[in-house]
Amino acid sequence: MNIILFEEQELDGGRVVLHDRRAVHIHKVLRATIGDRVRVGLVNGPMGSGRVASVVKGRPTRVELDVELGEIPTHQPEIDIILALPRPIMLRRILGQVAALGIGTLFIIQANRVEKSFWDSGLLEEGEYLEHLRHGLEQAVDTRLPQVRIFRKFKPFVEDFLPLVKDHYRFRILAHPYGTATLAGYLGPGEGRIVVAVGPEGGWVDFEVERFEAQGFRSCSLGDRILKVDTAVVALHARISAIRELLGRSAA
Amino acid sequence: MNIILFEEQELDGGRVVLHDRRAVHIHKVLRATIGDRVRVGLVNGPMGSGRVASVVKGRPTRVELDVELGEIPTHQPEIDIILALPRPIMLRRILGQVAALGIGTLFIIQANRVEKSFWDSGLLEEGEYLEHLRHGLEQAVDTRLPQVRIFRKFKPFVEDFLPLVKDHYRFRILAHPYGTATLAGYLGPGEGRIVVAVGPEGGWVDFEVERFEAQGFRSCSLGDRILKVDTAVVALHARISAIRELLGRSAA
Repeated sequence: MNIILFEEQELDGGRVVLHDRRAVHIHKVLRATIGDRVRVGLVNGPMGSGRVASVVKGRPTRVELDVELGEIPTHQPEIDIILALPRPIMLRRILGQVAALGIGTLFIIQANRVEKSFWDSGLLEEGEYLEHLRHGLEQAVDTRLPQVRIFRKFKPFVEDFLPLVKDHYRFRILAHPYGTATLAGYLGPGEGRIVVAVGPEGGWVDFEVERFEAQGFRSCSLGDRILKVDTAVVALHARISAIRELLGRSAA
Repeated sequence: MNIILFEEQELDGGRVVLHDRRAVHIHKVLRATIGDRVRVGLVNGPMGSGRVASVVKGRPTRVELDVELGEIPTHQPEIDIILALPRPIMLRRILGQVAALGIGTLFIIQANRVEKSFWDSGLLEEGEYLEHLRHGLEQAVDTRLPQVRIFRKFKPFVEDFLPLVKDHYRFRILAHPYGTATLAGYLGPGEGRIVVAVGPEGGWVDFEVERFEAQGFRSCSLGDRILKVDTAVVALHARISAIRELLGRSAA
């Protein structure tokens, strides 16, 4: 936990009272005592510092912070991710990772090769996935919580929803082992949001590839290695970020 | 398991007899029967196909393959990684990931912020880490097993060993949040091996940064987000690969 995050409703006249794992972290890991300052942030708001006003040991441990907020995070990350629902253990890891890497929205969708039982996962409940996203923000020192949107059916997502939002994206990437383009070949210089769609274990089926391509997605390959979904998500985010930084630089 | 890997000593006159998880995979997951072909590879050798010659169900399941090998993998991946020993659960994941991504050598080293107890992990025994590396190769469809070298003391590694090998590397990167360079700023066009050093949770201490810099390492930052070690390893590998591909292309 590299930043202590709290919600708007926890803030009362500049003071935040903590009595959960955040209090334990401040007391046991940071070993902060009265007067010490810790890094804090308002979820989806500014970051700043919190001065420890009181520490009460016990069960639960209770810590009061007087917070000063001021550092406004920069604009929303420019990458959104469409993810065919992976198995729960992998989704949990991906939630933390995408929040740590920084994305705008995570669209979790159905696909042909998604196992039906994955949709029973408790992780798809807001209280559950938000917790894992927050862990990612706490790791990366950020306050900008990715949005999550869940589509339990593929066709309504790709035929009804995507047409409404696709023009928000300058670059639309379908990660696909048999894609003919490379990321570096497809991504160009200049501003603009990017959306990348990552398939299930076993990949997208032909019908799905066609539907995405009909919405202006370009099939891009990461090379001939088959990666696990969580590795692929991080690698795609990192490659896209690196290419954008490099092309932005050469264009400037 | 996207490829069935076997060792030289398992090959007898073009036939391989399997009776472990590989046999179970061929029988239960691939549902292959006599005459079917499966993708096979010789560890650190060529890939090819294996024709199922017999399947005996039971405990253990037993499968015989007649293999034809021919596809020689391309040259060794150009990236090596120096990794401050992480906690075992993270090391296990990283072993699979680096094998899947493709690296030459993984140097596992001591650093100031490595917890002493991590060195007791059974994962540091050859039989253990090789298994996780093989899982990565089986995932990514590769036969080139990364080498692993373990250094339980920091000074002998950086003062005695690194001077002997540093000239093998055209680019030497120290991943460091306070690095002044970026990967894209440091990496140039052209051929040449790359080594990247990834610190422990909490980062390298000043002394370590100085020692690496004395060996020609350049401190590069991945940005101002603090990533977990496993996420950082994948992100670094992906960024370096993307930058190299892009610069190679523009130089060509």
